[in-house]
Amino acid sequence: CQAAAQKFSGGIGSKLCDLLPALDGDAKTMNFLQEVVDIMLAYIVESFDRSTKVIDFHYPNELLQRNNWELSDEPETLDDILISCRATLKYAIKTAHPRYFNQLSTGLDMVGLAADWLTSTANTNMFTYEVAPVFVLLEYVTLKKMREIIGWQEGRGDGIFSPGGAISNMYAMLLARYKMFPEVKEKGMSSAPRLVAFTSEHSHFSIKKGAAALGIGTESVICIKADERGKMIPSDLERRIIEAKQKGYVPFFVSATAGTTVYGAFDPLMAIADICKKHDIWMHVDGAWGGSLLMSRKHRWKLNGVERANSMTWNPHKMMAVPLQCSALLVREEGLMQSCNQMQACYLFQQDKQYDLSYDTGDKALQCGRHVDIFKLWLMWRAKGTIGFEAQIDKCLELSEYLYNKIKDREGYEMVFDGKPQHTNVCFWYLPPGVRYLEDKVEKMKRLHKVAPVIKARMMEYGTTMVSYQPQGDKVNFFRMVISNPAATFEDIDFLIEEIERLGQDL
Amino acid sequence: CQAAAQKFSGGIGSKLCDLLPALDGDAKTMNFLQEVVDIMLAYIVESFDRSTKVIDFHYPNELLQRNNWELSDEPETLDDILISCRATLKYAIKTAHPRYFNQLSTGLDMVGLAADWLTSTANTNMFTYEVAPVFVLLEYVTLKKMREIIGWQEGRGDGIFSPGGAISNMYAMLLARYKMFPEVKEKGMSSAPRLVAFTSEHSHFSIKKGAAALGIGTESVICIKADERGKMIPSDLERRIIEAKQKGYVPFFVSATAGTTVYGAFDPLMAIADICKKHDIWMHVDGAWGGSLLMSRKHRWKLNGVERANSMTWNPHKMMAVPLQCSALLVREEGLMQSCNQMQACYLFQQDKQYDLSYDTGDKALQCGRHVDIFKLWLMWRAKGTIGFEAQIDKCLELSEYLYNKIKDREGYEMVFDGKPQHTNVCFWYLPPGVRYLEDKVEKMKRLHKVAPVIKARMMEYGTTMVSYQPQGDKVNFFRMVISNPAATFEDIDFLIEEIERLGQDL
Repeated sequence: CQAAAQKFSGGIGSKLCDLLPALDGDAKTMNFLQEVVDIMLAYIVESFDRSTKVIDFHYPNELLQRNNWELSDEPETLDDILISCRATLKYAIKTAHPRYFNQLSTGLDMVGLAADWLTSTANTNMFTYEVAPVFVLLEYVTLKKMREIIGWQEGRGDGIFSPGGAISNMYAMLLARYKMFPEVKEKGMSSAPRLVAFTSEHSHFSIKKGAAALGIGTESVICIKADERGKMIPSDLERRIIEAKQKGYVPFFVSATAGTTVYGAFDPLMAIADICKKHDIWMHVDGAWGGSLLMSRKHRWKLNGVERANSMTWNPHKMMAVPLQCSALLVREEGLMQSCNQMQACYLFQQDKQYDLSYDTGDKALQCGRHVDIFKLWLMWRAKGTIGFEAQIDKCLELSEYLYNKIKDREGYEMVFDGKPQHTNVCFWYLPPGVRYLEDKVEKMKRLHKVAPVIKARMMEYGTTMVSYQPQGDKVNFFRMVISNPAATFEDIDFLIEEIERLGQDL
Repeated sequence: CQAAAQKFSGGIGSKLCDLLPALDGDAKTMNFLQEVVDIMLAYIVESFDRSTKVIDFHYPNELLQRNNWELSDEPETLDDILISCRATLKYAIKTAHPRYFNQLSTGLDMVGLAADWLTSTANTNMFTYEVAPVFVLLEYVTLKKMREIIGWQEGRGDGIFSPGGAISNMYAMLLARYKMFPEVKEKGMSSAPRLVAFTSEHSHFSIKKGAAALGIGTESVICIKADERGKMIPSDLERRIIEAKQKGYVPFFVSATAGTTVYGAFDPLMAIADICKKHDIWMHVDGAWGGSLLMSRKHRWKLNGVERANSMTWNPHKMMAVPLQCSALLVREEGLMQSCNQMQACYLFQQDKQYDLSYDTGDKALQCGRHVDIFKLWLMWRAKGTIGFEAQIDKCLELSEYLYNKIKDREGYEMVFDGKPQHTNVCFWYLPPGVRYLEDKVEKMKRLHKVAPVIKARMMEYGTTMVSYQPQGDKVNFFRMVISNPAATFEDIDFLIEEIERLGQDL
């Protein structure tokens, strides 16, 4: 068998040598894959079952000991492989569980999942039409549709699916710099004056991360004040732009946020667009989290002005519940990505191919190989239609309004900011009885700061639910509830509140 | 049904509303997913069958018309979704086909595929232990194992799985810059002197792409001469380093290549390490393609000296046939990635969690969310053992030696460089009878330049095989044969040669 394996299947390991591509490996392969599918199907059903735990939590050292995770020289048997699959899912977080609220990406869409399985099976790469004809076309169709929804004329422009919002934002910053100082591509930052970028103090850390990587430096990212709801204050933006110009710096990039990570705030895009136009600055909208509200006739007004942006980040893997990863960067100007990023590697982008080379999109990417992230979004869109995404998004916003109404006047709760949330983010403190009536304000804050971490740790130990918390500015730790899983219901919101009170009552 | 969908499943679309998470959606979901699985299983069996086409090629405009790929407001039925799945696979490239030689990533491993399906099902994100406990541990275990194989003491060091070799190389350049001039993170490139990087003229274009993005500029990437086999010439490297220093530039980064893209050449790492040590420059090894030879006791000598590198890119999705994407950056110094990239976002990397925070690896990444790429590599490693990967790699190299021996003295063939290939790259010209005997050398080269593109286009139209071609320097278009699919056999190599001759005889 080992010899046969070496000859026909590349020595896949003596115990596995009868799987495909081994001769006559069909039946054995079908059986093996079917067993894995059955394990997954059971996991999926369990994930949606509220009587199961969201997480079977163990500390890292303990988890390391609960299974044999080591790699060795010798192969394992197929039965061992199935055991590993079961163990991996046993200790995984059930991110599809209707009571998992921990991240901006939650839920598991069945059509999206099927599409991701198919993507893995096709196992190809986005760089050329030659090796990914269908996926390249679907990316083209989908990006055009997204640009139409943004409101760019006839859906014109450009774009790419990138490995996440942080990279999409970095692309935008790179394009803005190239647009103003194309010579930086060849000559580096020393050929440009000191560039400065602007974003609100509530924006995502990837703006600074991008500036650090691109050689612009984090100190050249100027943080604009946000109002009490977390929205960028346009007058402060303009003031800081003028100030920077007076210092001889060159403002080149404003990143407005549509849906901030913690408060879910939407920056006033129209006012920001006016300022960017006046000062001739690239306007980017980081809609990684909030961009999907464009799919909702009821909520899309929150992004009014986005059509005036030069670029936009929009992550369907968040509010549209597309499986991870699925992040788009949309760009208004055609051709810019290509000239900014192309290196014309002749072994990949041959100019004497038989087909229309405009479909070889690889050279406009920062990456060389690029994972196929489009099919799951495209197939879900086909399955739901735009109205299906809309219904899903509207429902999640309805749930968050329900939560807000439930706790805003409830004893023991305090909202972090006033008024109805604009996105599904509901930020609040829970004050256990032992903290609620403390008169010493310093002591009270000190105690309150510790409440959310303790409740969270208990949630994970019981495994009943998960929700995020963090401090913000001078505000002590508070819960940030977000809802992006269409499986969640009003009852799950009720459960969350009961659970917080149950786990926190003794604090 | 629509109302139920809105209530229970977020309005997944009237025609699909009975899939999970709908109440009692289990059976319908199982049936749907099982139908998709059956479509995929049939595709897999077909992919390994030599009597099927590698590709059913259509020009972009034609392919756009062969199916309805448009997105609309209204949902489709589940039957339509299954039709779309079938159409997508019908027009896909069969990258698992034993006669698909087009890219460095080919083949389809059954255990890797199962693992990728399971990854999609777990649908989580690498940023914290909290949301990906098992995958974070497996990344830790696997990176350590890879560092041990590189030869770093006790497997110490750091690393990350990134979205491809280009990004891994960019990480390395970023780390090298940070190591020498940490202030660039805050103050940008204007706080550093003019930095220069070095790589061979045969290296991957991502080194220049990285330099462009990082604000270093492509002109600051100095291309070192390669010998006739495509290996960097160490004396030229040292000469150019000294020259740069004399100009007042600061050499900060040398990227040696282990397995160049076209020739498969291995730069002389030991000599390069000596030079880097002498001049105190960060040594990176881009082993995206050739790094996997470290798994082979027979071939790992080609990377002798890699243990002296500061960082290494190694893509298991190439020569180890792990499904796309799976690229690792390994770093010798511990802690550097964290300090280089961290932004300490308090809503994600809370410092008051209940578990050991060293497992929250997200802040050392350039990305925020990061796709789970580890499980397929880990599970394949378990299934094959190190010796299984070794057998697979040795076999591919054996096939390429067979090809080399077969054509080196065959009439009508000319090798692009002399001697046995070091990797699986075999670069050659096929001279059809009509070109073979031309006496006018200019005319001969002109005609020869057009041969490979025409044969390639015909291969795609017949769909029988696919192999890459390109010019290089002053050399006209030649075929670059690479083998990374363990399903390939000696007979497939014979077939390729017959096919080239059949399709090219009239040229």
